[in-house]
Amino acid sequence: MRYKLTIEYDGTNLLGWQRQLDGPSVQQYLEDILDKLNGEHKEITSAGRTDAGVHALAQVAHIDLNREMPEWKIKEAFNGNLLQEEAPVSILSVEAVEESFNARFSAKKRAYIYRILNRRAPSPLLKNRVWWTPYPLDIEKMREGAKFLIGHHDFSSFRASACQAKSPVKTLDKIDIRQEGEEIIFEVEARSFLHHQVRNMVGTLKLVGEGRLPPEAIKTILEAKDRNAAGPTAPAGGLYLSKVGY
Amino acid sequence: MRYKLTIEYDGTNLLGWQRQLDGPSVQQYLEDILDKLNGEHKEITSAGRTDAGVHALAQVAHIDLNREMPEWKIKEAFNGNLLQEEAPVSILSVEAVEESFNARFSAKKRAYIYRILNRRAPSPLLKNRVWWTPYPLDIEKMREGAKFLIGHHDFSSFRASACQAKSPVKTLDKIDIRQEGEEIIFEVEARSFLHHQVRNMVGTLKLVGEGRLPPEAIKTILEAKDRNAAGPTAPAGGLYLSKVGY
Repeated sequence: MRYKLTIEYDGTNLLGWQRQLDGPSVQQYLEDILDKLNGEHKEITSAGRTDAGVHALAQVAHIDLNREMPEWKIKEAFNGNLLQEEAPVSILSVEAVEESFNARFSAKKRAYIYRILNRRAPSPLLKNRVWWTPYPLDIEKMREGAKFLIGHHDFSSFRASACQAKSPVKTLDKIDIRQEGEEIIFEVEARSFLHHQVRNMVGTLKLVGEGRLPPEAIKTILEAKDRNAAGPTAPAGGLYLSKVGY
Repeated sequence: MRYKLTIEYDGTNLLGWQRQLDGPSVQQYLEDILDKLNGEHKEITSAGRTDAGVHALAQVAHIDLNREMPEWKIKEAFNGNLLQEEAPVSILSVEAVEESFNARFSAKKRAYIYRILNRRAPSPLLKNRVWWTPYPLDIEKMREGAKFLIGHHDFSSFRASACQAKSPVKTLDKIDIRQEGEEIIFEVEARSFLHHQVRNMVGTLKLVGEGRLPPEAIKTILEAKDRNAAGPTAPAGGLYLSKVGY
């Protein structure tokens, strides 16, 4: 019996989605609970392996159970155990799916948001939730620069050296930038992303926002197909996996 | 030279505003920095002494400096030191004021917000930021009950036993309740509040929202003038001092 889980987590004290030997991960928390339910070890696959410090509003994973169980009961079993372990992870919903459903390979769209807090004073209440940037950012210039990223491109300039994707060519469907109070919110969507792609795009667009790069520089950087041409990687704490579409 | 400070803090790991011997407080962090600036110890007075775990979006305090300093320089001096000490406190603004200004006694209005997360699954991203209540709350019923609290009343039923106020009689100017996504937000305003008054009002209104008390019970509870008549104290983490008016 296959079930689809939708998962929220606070990535601050996690080593990311994937199981690691040296610290807690979402996968480990969830697999340990699944092992109890199944009585044997089964691996859990997610839509995307988020990095250490990255959050999820709605990560998706699938699990296989040895027996049928009501959806609400699976949810309560996971959340009860997660609360008890004080895991920074919560199951938002559980849904029975076909055996053919695969959280990773059936995904048609992944959406992320990136939050920048753009004000002079730091915010203790938003620590590890936003990237605090004290110098005023020009949103219009960032939007102009972001336009060059939309579409089908070789994103090598925005790809982490550790990236395991077969090809650096991806299609970016959306990159919207909006002001919300003192925050600047980036919304990006694609079928899939390269490792660090969103954080590298945001880190480079921030240089445009500060006036240290002209918007057209994004085109040149993209065409260089060289990670050294782009700006720094934006911090993990501002990034949220917000939706996976199937 | 007197200056008005507007302060944000994450109360989660603080013992509250007031200096304590057994742990960190906002007052202690700020006074230690002020001591450095002045070269001698001076106490700092705030608009209200928030409890352990309670947050502030805009607490107000005043400080006296031995010499004149540009406002921005005072702000940077405080924030530089606070960041270095990883204090969960930030100075949002500094403003030169008359000697007659007193953060506590000149305050004409205090506003708080209280955030309830009303959904089945807990939220790791909002831990210590909201009160998570999994059973559905009826907002209309809570509003009906809240109406009885508006105005000039003896609030003994909602007063902590440790409260040091001379009189239990206060005037509640506003208690608005609204839904915002999965959250229920309370906004309350008064010239001043009794100790735990907001949290005791919210804790009691939650019983009305759950249908465990009828809205009219709030009137009876208020008239009882007895803390035992009301509901439990809502947790500190959902409460934010949001504005002080002068």
